Amino acid sequence: MAVQYILGLDFGTDSVRAVVVNAQSGKEEANQVAYFKRWTKGQYCDPARNQFRQHPQDYIDSMEEAVEGALAQLPSSAGEAVAGIGIDTTGSTPCPVDRGGTPLALKAPFKDNPNAMFVLWKDHTAVKEAEQINELARSWGGVDYTKYEGGIYSSEWFWAKILHVLREDPKVAAEAHSWVEHADWMPALLTGNTDPLTLKRSRCAAGHKAMWHPEWDGLPSEEFLVKLDPLLKGLRERLFRETYTSDVKAGELTEEWAGRLGIPAGIAVAVGAFDAHIGAVGGGIGPATLTKIMGTSTCDMIVAPDAEVGDKQVAGICGQVDGSIVPGLIGLEAGQSAFGDVYAWLVNLLYWPLQYAESVPDDPETKEKLRQDIKDKLLQNLTEEAARIPPGQSGLLALDWLNGRRTPDADQSLKGAIIGLSLGTDAPRIFRALVEATAYGSRAIVERFRNEGVAIQDVVALGGIAQKSPFVMQVTADVLNMPIKVATSEQTCALGAAMFAAVAAGIYNNVAEAQEKMGSGFSRTYTPDAANAKVYDRLYEQYLQLGRTLEQQLREL
Amino acid sequence: MAVQYILGLDFGTDSVRAVVVNAQSGKEEANQVAYFKRWTKGQYCDPARNQFRQHPQDYIDSMEEAVEGALAQLPSSAGEAVAGIGIDTTGSTPCPVDRGGTPLALKAPFKDNPNAMFVLWKDHTAVKEAEQINELARSWGGVDYTKYEGGIYSSEWFWAKILHVLREDPKVAAEAHSWVEHADWMPALLTGNTDPLTLKRSRCAAGHKAMWHPEWDGLPSEEFLVKLDPLLKGLRERLFRETYTSDVKAGELTEEWAGRLGIPAGIAVAVGAFDAHIGAVGGGIGPATLTKIMGTSTCDMIVAPDAEVGDKQVAGICGQVDGSIVPGLIGLEAGQSAFGDVYAWLVNLLYWPLQYAESVPDDPETKEKLRQDIKDKLLQNLTEEAARIPPGQSGLLALDWLNGRRTPDADQSLKGAIIGLSLGTDAPRIFRALVEATAYGSRAIVERFRNEGVAIQDVVALGGIAQKSPFVMQVTADVLNMPIKVATSEQTCALGAAMFAAVAAGIYNNVAEAQEKMGSGFSRTYTPDAANAKVYDRLYEQYLQLGRTLEQQLREL
Repeated sequence: MAVQYILGLDFGTDSVRAVVVNAQSGKEEANQVAYFKRWTKGQYCDPARNQFRQHPQDYIDSMEEAVEGALAQLPSSAGEAVAGIGIDTTGSTPCPVDRGGTPLALKAPFKDNPNAMFVLWKDHTAVKEAEQINELARSWGGVDYTKYEGGIYSSEWFWAKILHVLREDPKVAAEAHSWVEHADWMPALLTGNTDPLTLKRSRCAAGHKAMWHPEWDGLPSEEFLVKLDPLLKGLRERLFRETYTSDVKAGELTEEWAGRLGIPAGIAVAVGAFDAHIGAVGGGIGPATLTKIMGTSTCDMIVAPDAEVGDKQVAGICGQVDGSIVPGLIGLEAGQSAFGDVYAWLVNLLYWPLQYAESVPDDPETKEKLRQDIKDKLLQNLTEEAARIPPGQSGLLALDWLNGRRTPDADQSLKGAIIGLSLGTDAPRIFRALVEATAYGSRAIVERFRNEGVAIQDVVALGGIAQKSPFVMQVTADVLNMPIKVATSEQTCALGAAMFAAVAAGIYNNVAEAQEKMGSGFSRTYTPDAANAKVYDRLYEQYLQLGRTLEQQLREL
Repeated sequence: MAVQYILGLDFGTDSVRAVVVNAQSGKEEANQVAYFKRWTKGQYCDPARNQFRQHPQDYIDSMEEAVEGALAQLPSSAGEAVAGIGIDTTGSTPCPVDRGGTPLALKAPFKDNPNAMFVLWKDHTAVKEAEQINELARSWGGVDYTKYEGGIYSSEWFWAKILHVLREDPKVAAEAHSWVEHADWMPALLTGNTDPLTLKRSRCAAGHKAMWHPEWDGLPSEEFLVKLDPLLKGLRERLFRETYTSDVKAGELTEEWAGRLGIPAGIAVAVGAFDAHIGAVGGGIGPATLTKIMGTSTCDMIVAPDAEVGDKQVAGICGQVDGSIVPGLIGLEAGQSAFGDVYAWLVNLLYWPLQYAESVPDDPETKEKLRQDIKDKLLQNLTEEAARIPPGQSGLLALDWLNGRRTPDADQSLKGAIIGLSLGTDAPRIFRALVEATAYGSRAIVERFRNEGVAIQDVVALGGIAQKSPFVMQVTADVLNMPIKVATSEQTCALGAAMFAAVAAGIYNNVAEAQEKMGSGFSRTYTPDAANAKVYDRLYEQYLQLGRTLEQQLREL
């Protein structure tokens, strides 16, 4: 049989990665990243207000650049061998679209309006709206629509963001016919069906972020939405009722996009889904395995048979949705709002004196490169020195909620804290305390799942931190007191997307078969140290106590 | 009348300063600092264990260097016009001495033994001993000897330090016949009377730090001390019963020291006292004026007529002693264990990445100079940026106990904290929060005095921070909601010492007369901003709440 390739497109926070995967072996034949240009310059964002928006043109430009770059690494015939496309994106990252499904920012009057763009997952401008959704869901007398999303709706999610933008921007509100998730829009664009009413919506996005559930026939009722705000009147009917898992074909690649990307027209494009969920599949997820995607934040994924979870709602997580990760199993999602971002915060803090050296060189790109090199070196030095401090000997205790808390019990109004400072507290001690704090945050998620009856027997780690920081991984294994296996593939999101597309293209019968044939295995296992685990058992209790003690005061700051 | 000079010697934490003061006008004619050489190199100290020791030879060498340097700035006849010497030092800074009153570290077998040296005020190795003193004072059934020292004995003080050293070092314990405060030893040395039984001991040191009080005829009873630890048996009789205020002559300058310093033999050397107390006199202290000496830490001083304080013990301060500041008035002392040190902590933290640049230059002195210049520049940049953040807008709340808490309610086991961290928290925001926290710490002292019936009508600020940081001073005035006057003299400690020596030498009849003739007045007043004061009223309550919430957990870290 002739070799078949699958194109996996992984849209992350800063860039898109195109990976050409061998459909038979799972081997990653070529791999190209392209950064979002407007985003990299900080356009349309206001970090002080936690406003993070992305321009749809960034996605288009970078996708073309990445695909072209990846194919250029292979013989010129490679493009012809591509048999399917799988796509994952960040989420919830919704965008207002017009009647034809075009993102408003692609229309001239809105081209520089951040409210007409994709509202990135980590945008926290909708804190108030999330609070109102939570209040109404509990008080309105009907079904609590948050119950399959952990019982607490987050400001990072679909409806909160939509409502915030509609309230803030009457011009956008007037023009927004419907809304699409980034994961829905990319396949829609490539298959030429962007009609908001018929494009194939992701089960994963809808079920985890949009309060979609078969129990109430899809999205929350019109009555509920109008009670929330009359601005939402009629929107439900302009959104969707059906949703699809990513083993389903969203459609076929159009002639136009085939030409632009240099691959065959008519090939299968799979329904999109969120990076974490698809990455978990790429990392080999199965029942009782917690898959932890560790980057700037974490996503913690489990799949469980319906019999294990049953009708029960798991409290305080980000959601439980049939088929949102692996078709046929309940996908459960949790996560930490900041993980690597917590370490990056300390590096940025320590970088502060160095900004004054930035007058040289003149060229912005060289400057950015230098800046990043210095920060990488700082992180490396911090890691080396912090690793020499024994567990619990920093003298410090920290809370890792620098970007709010996603799970357990979402609360974006929480903040971070460091206590125990003395005149001898130095940067490595603070770094160690922050690493320990993010590990305690991981443990709080594990304990919540177990307390809710979901079995966890082992942990698989994916993502940049898992690949690059043995120190962080060892501390996390010690705190969790469980071995952590690291997947061999550094591109499990793109690999997972390719697995789904291989099923959608008819190469495999189901996801388990694709995982077996295309999976990369594990490169390393971090085994917990028994003595350290004992120390951390005690410190973890102090962490929980500190959180309980400070929660109310942190919300008021 | 021919001009008369007084030599004021101010022994600080890092250096001694010699100031030649005109006895008639108070004008500072010459001024020379000399740093303690062994101390500057970090010898005999272990900051990680909070062990800070100073070698007596450092005091001798630096005193000679400073006096020589000051006199060299004046016509060669100036030395002959010196009519008295006044001395202040840090404290409680005790040292073990032999039968003749020689500090053990000046004897060959002990020359490099930190336990044979002066235990600097900020040494916190005696935390356990202070706890035992407090427990025993409450439980033994006799008088509570801590009652005139605020009711809580500190690890920074005389008996705790003595007991710690005796327990830790049997060789020192065997050789230590008696103990002297730095403030007692310097005049003793210069007047040739170092006999521990007859040298004139400072009322200030004894009353504030050694539980000396006329109510129980001097030091705590032998019974109490032996109950505390049999190691203390007999020591009481080898210490002292009488104490003296600094308007009293300790003795006359010996021929030997007259020769070494280049000033006349036989001139009056006043009894020594602590820098803060003497500095308050140099700054013009009088009833209802809180004098705040603001440097690495603060000392907060008030004098009150006996009628105002009466028999009442003011709770949670560092002590109340008749004549410890101004003879004839009750001297009340409080303070913050870290003030400028809190800012220096942040600067050191931010300096961490810069340490890697330290390979150049090679020469240690140039290196240290560069290091200090960079740190000064950092502090200046932090100040400029923090000053632009409105009150209460850092998003942070901090506790200033990075070196424990001295008052109210001494507790060296407390630590600092910063809460409210977000991914947008930068160095200037942290600096602003720390400055606000040290100001809240100042306010907690003011409120304690007022709650205990001690009137405070205005504030006079002395010390490095008062002179150099308008930003910190304005925040402090806003938080206290009181005007703060800054004394014109930058050397109020040396000036105050000179005032006392002028009385001891018979030039003036009493301290008030010396203050009137020699005082420097005020160079600047910081007036509180009413709107800011209102914001801080609210934030101060949050600070108090945070402290109450975290106290127990901070002690356990």
